[in-house]
Amino acid sequence: MVRLGVIGYGYWGPNLVRNFSEAPGAQVTMVSDMRPDRLMLALRRYPSLKTTSDYRELLRDPDIDAVVIATPVSTHYDLAMKALQAGKHVLVEKPMTATTEQALRLVEEAAVRGLRLMVDHTFTYTSAVRKIKELVAAGSIGEIYYYDSVRVNLGIFQHDVNVLWDLAVHDLSIMDYILPFTPYAVSATGMSHLPGKPENIAYLTLFFEESLIAHIHVNWLAPVKIRRTLIGGNRKMIVYDDLEPSEKVKTYDKGVTFDAGAEVKHQMLVGYRAGDMWAPHLDVTEALLTEATHFVRCVEGAETPQTSGESGLRVVRILEAATRSIGDRGRPVELNLSEKDKKRRAVA
Amino acid sequence: MVRLGVIGYGYWGPNLVRNFSEAPGAQVTMVSDMRPDRLMLALRRYPSLKTTSDYRELLRDPDIDAVVIATPVSTHYDLAMKALQAGKHVLVEKPMTATTEQALRLVEEAAVRGLRLMVDHTFTYTSAVRKIKELVAAGSIGEIYYYDSVRVNLGIFQHDVNVLWDLAVHDLSIMDYILPFTPYAVSATGMSHLPGKPENIAYLTLFFEESLIAHIHVNWLAPVKIRRTLIGGNRKMIVYDDLEPSEKVKTYDKGVTFDAGAEVKHQMLVGYRAGDMWAPHLDVTEALLTEATHFVRCVEGAETPQTSGESGLRVVRILEAATRSIGDRGRPVELNLSEKDKKRRAVA
Amino acid sequence: MVRLGVIGYGYWGPNLVRNFSEAPGAQVTMVSDMRPDRLMLALRRYPSLKTTSDYRELLRDPDIDAVVIATPVSTHYDLAMKALQAGKHVLVEKPMTATTEQALRLVEEAAVRGLRLMVDHTFTYTSAVRKIKELVAAGSIGEIYYYDSVRVNLGIFQHDVNVLWDLAVHDLSIMDYILPFTPYAVSATGMSHLPGKPENIAYLTLFFEESLIAHIHVNWLAPVKIRRTLIGGNRKMIVYDDLEPSEKVKTYDKGVTFDAGAEVKHQMLVGYRAGDMWAPHLDVTEALLTEATHFVRCVEGAETPQTSGESGLRVVRILEAATRSIGDRGRPVELNLSEKDKKRRAVA
Amino acid sequence: MVRLGVIGYGYWGPNLVRNFSEAPGAQVTMVSDMRPDRLMLALRRYPSLKTTSDYRELLRDPDIDAVVIATPVSTHYDLAMKALQAGKHVLVEKPMTATTEQALRLVEEAAVRGLRLMVDHTFTYTSAVRKIKELVAAGSIGEIYYYDSVRVNLGIFQHDVNVLWDLAVHDLSIMDYILPFTPYAVSATGMSHLPGKPENIAYLTLFFEESLIAHIHVNWLAPVKIRRTLIGGNRKMIVYDDLEPSEKVKTYDKGVTFDAGAEVKHQMLVGYRAGDMWAPHLDVTEALLTEATHFVRCVEGAETPQTSGESGLRVVRILEAATRSIGDRGRPVELNLSEKDKKRRAVA
Repeated sequence: MVRLGVIGYGYWGPNLVRNFSEAPGAQVTMVSDMRPDRLMLALRRYPSLKTTSDYRELLRDPDIDAVVIATPVSTHYDLAMKALQAGKHVLVEKPMTATTEQALRLVEEAAVRGLRLMVDHTFTYTSAVRKIKELVAAGSIGEIYYYDSVRVNLGIFQHDVNVLWDLAVHDLSIMDYILPFTPYAVSATGMSHLPGKPENIAYLTLFFEESLIAHIHVNWLAPVKIRRTLIGGNRKMIVYDDLEPSEKVKTYDKGVTFDAGAEVKHQMLVGYRAGDMWAPHLDVTEALLTEATHFVRCVEGAETPQTSGESGLRVVRILEAATRSIGDRGRPVELNLSEKDKKRRAVA
Repeated sequence: MVRLGVIGYGYWGPNLVRNFSEAPGAQVTMVSDMRPDRLMLALRRYPSLKTTSDYRELLRDPDIDAVVIATPVSTHYDLAMKALQAGKHVLVEKPMTATTEQALRLVEEAAVRGLRLMVDHTFTYTSAVRKIKELVAAGSIGEIYYYDSVRVNLGIFQHDVNVLWDLAVHDLSIMDYILPFTPYAVSATGMSHLPGKPENIAYLTLFFEESLIAHIHVNWLAPVKIRRTLIGGNRKMIVYDDLEPSEKVKTYDKGVTFDAGAEVKHQMLVGYRAGDMWAPHLDVTEALLTEATHFVRCVEGAETPQTSGESGLRVVRILEAATRSIGDRGRPVELNLSEKDKKRRAVA
Repeated sequence: MVRLGVIGYGYWGPNLVRNFSEAPGAQVTMVSDMRPDRLMLALRRYPSLKTTSDYRELLRDPDIDAVVIATPVSTHYDLAMKALQAGKHVLVEKPMTATTEQALRLVEEAAVRGLRLMVDHTFTYTSAVRKIKELVAAGSIGEIYYYDSVRVNLGIFQHDVNVLWDLAVHDLSIMDYILPFTPYAVSATGMSHLPGKPENIAYLTLFFEESLIAHIHVNWLAPVKIRRTLIGGNRKMIVYDDLEPSEKVKTYDKGVTFDAGAEVKHQMLVGYRAGDMWAPHLDVTEALLTEATHFVRCVEGAETPQTSGESGLRVVRILEAATRSIGDRGRPVELNLSEKDKKRRAVA
Repeated sequence: MVRLGVIGYGYWGPNLVRNFSEAPGAQVTMVSDMRPDRLMLALRRYPSLKTTSDYRELLRDPDIDAVVIATPVSTHYDLAMKALQAGKHVLVEKPMTATTEQALRLVEEAAVRGLRLMVDHTFTYTSAVRKIKELVAAGSIGEIYYYDSVRVNLGIFQHDVNVLWDLAVHDLSIMDYILPFTPYAVSATGMSHLPGKPENIAYLTLFFEESLIAHIHVNWLAPVKIRRTLIGGNRKMIVYDDLEPSEKVKTYDKGVTFDAGAEVKHQMLVGYRAGDMWAPHLDVTEALLTEATHFVRCVEGAETPQTSGESGLRVVRILEAATRSIGDRGRPVELNLSEKDKKRRAVA
């Protein structure tokens, strides 16, 4: 039985507690939050829970094996580091940290201590994203040409981070899970419409060694909600629309065929291929339950984190570089991959 | 009666001939094309037409008042310049020229000779775009925050120009018509999936002095066709979907309200406003007929070109700068506005 | 404070208990259900609740003012009658009873005893349906020509009632609320694909004295979910799509104009009118909370039931007649309106 | 070479002439129409055409092998009969005739004379409908449970026939082509909103010996255009949406599974099955060209009419019975199948 403590019972914390309560082999024993009313709420739902307004009490509890952190991003590093130092396995909300440097330190600390560090990239546990990963891995898409995502709506303006850290983090974590490549540079543009505040609209391009380009468009100020990703390959193309009630993932047997030999007078023959469309059936299991169950298995040593600290680090590194690029109106920023990171990818 | 000669009877030429034939006060008298079968086709449809395989014959014809050029972009400058030098008014396909330098020279030549130079920015003559212009000009949108357009499909790969010159030219000409501002810099990224060929996917950001940002996303290799523009303002927002059969333009009474005075502990109060949606009825007149009629009236001196050589120049300048930016992975490129251009805008 | 007892804690009961718990001036004091596990579930959520497996205990409790019945339709009459006889006000699930005769008796019993009898026609408390009612009442639609509803999906097959009693009951209760007319006859067709079981697909036409026709199409065996109602009038038309996330109600300024005087050679001039589309903003309050609050106010004597026993009776009368018509392959069945009912309508 | 004469050059005639001009082995030699301006229009497009204002001239021409009739329905019988009597093969617009009696006579006349009689059920020549036929014939759908079609829009009010004859004729001809069954009775309801004029809204149910039910909903007065057919079977279900730009036909691997043996206490176990969705690629050939080519081959004796006079008769018989049923507010009307017709079906 893995016993868990949850720090933060605000917007997302209740979902984590509920799903860990249902995950086999897990037990949430303590919740901490600085707001008494949130602890009251937790207690009403789970009368046998221990609660505290001081997270240090939770870290000191020798009965707790793992800590789940669901607090604002600015506090992630400090809390996660202290949890690791207290010998706890850690699952932390996304984005993992506020800086690349912090992410690196957490990854190292967890490695040194032999503890599990996992980041809550929830979307990678949905059946839609897992199906896409499966299709990509099986070669159905062929060589991947582009990854293009739009994630816009009339959303809550964050005050400490720009819209990339709030919305693009979803796309970056999905891409990190799906694509077998790591980008080497980023160019981003954006705008704030609230003087002195972070950007509420942003566009981000990722460059890869391969002939692959990725682009993410996020916006807190859109009249309609859009959640749509296009993935193009030389064999098939995917449209992933998360707002579709049932057919979220559609694959199109469409593309172009290049006939290099047939080039005549600077005119290359490009043939068009249009075939069937197919939308695979998707399970309806709740992503967070899948993730909670997986984390428990990781703590038990039976599985390896799918959304490890390293993936959290890769995502934060892009967010940090993109924010820098926005300040320079799109000037590309190199991602300075570590040798280890390059090697890891080469092996995979 | 304005007598017209049309150079080029390929894909678009027949549409131009058909609409000028219906425009009041106009008469198409001659068509030139280097391909005999195209001339045959023209003759079968319009038995009284004169045809020639040598455009110079058309330019020499003293009965022709104005020339319409519907040939590949690489030939625009040469043909338009010769037509102006032959004393003809000119309507030229978009993009107006292959370079900014060429566009400048045409504008100057037409000014010196007192001839009309107009560019076929067809979309600006649709009832949808005209309605949006009307709403923007009336202040319905309020302060404009962003202009965001997606124009993707499985399209024909051009061999001489990248996807920006083929698809983004539509959005840039619409923006030039709708927005009362001129961008000062551009950042663009893109990728070619055909070795040695122009980019088939591209993303373009435009920067303005005002707190306005514009972004265009174009792609020749998408599994689905999308033609959708979001325009956000502080009073209203617009969704323009050109594929909608009837409600192409939707206005949303949605937005955020910033209460700067109420800022507490780095938390600014942002209120959300959600109101009615309204889709104005749109006329169904064919845009090209509206444009042809307008050009005839311009030649007659009764109207001033809505899509003048200057607008063609502004669009080409952005396309050229964006293509340069793509080569530098998004590095911003200044648009070097002429003093005249700045003045023109200031006045308007 | 109105104290309520709820009979039945199956699928819908928990929603009723939750909303009555939140309704001002109300308190759910007891829940009865024959299944111990359902009572356990209720207790876990509401520790201070009294529970019983015998509904008679609930009816005997002098502290209970009103009873909410959320059991299978075959038990409605018996439970509601006993509750009325025990002096309790009653809110009963839809359809109100299994027969018209039963519905009539309940209405009479409540009238004789001066108790409130209300039926849970939930949809009439949604902001979408209330907005439509408002538009119709204000004359925006003009003379109403037709009411056409489709309600299909892959749904649970009921074993005791056909699909009309399960799905069309929603449309009938919405129509009863929206339309100022009462139908005088019904024709219905349908089919069962499970030998010996009730119809799983059905079509129902209602006839009115006015030149109004209504049609409802319901199906438990459809590959896609559709919830769409068209309401046509001589001034405007409405499309109500309950699956739309935000614009559920759209009004179209469209129609035809008949010019009787202009009839020439048996050709009547029919003009077409196409104007704006407008989707009013809708509140997001939960319908059931609005209804619960309303029922409490009715029990207190402050309001009159919007979905009274009489409306429940009118709906059941149509369902009964339609079921008879299905057996005769569409032969029309008269609805035998009582004089009282006709009078009521005439007055309204 | 099959030489054709076309009677009627109004709305549909030009499409017929254009497609027969392109069909291999065919030549349109004469067109008749009572309106001189229509003949002028025809001549301008096809200068070598013979034209006449008297169709009898066309029927007398010994060089004409086959006659295509594209006139109002009230004239179909007379023209087709005279054409057959003049020894011409006939292709006639839908609906084939104004009465069942007329249809029967044409079928008999053609049979006696050994001439081809074909009706222009255009939709059955679209790639969408042919794909559905293919799926049904291959057993992909399994046992067919229902056929449900909605065909509504703001359409032209016909003055001589009701909306069934104008719109439902499409669905009936598609059904006649797709389904291997013939209905034995019909129930229909409808309403006219123009005093003394035919119904502009109608609903039609067809009954079959098999456990199949069909329903068609047509309306000339709808605010939105809908063209959607649901076909449910015990193995798969189809959604055919003719307004979809590319995926017009979608098949759903969805359904219910009945486990009769597992019935417990009047509760039958019904299992739900939800699988993949698949939209086959469809060709883009013009239906009318396919049909014209087919008719030419039929006249040559190489093929047998897919939409024979018999299919035209079956469709008219339903339209006639449905119109009678509307007058009786849905009372079912038997279709009085001929023994020959029953036999034909039994064999097929």
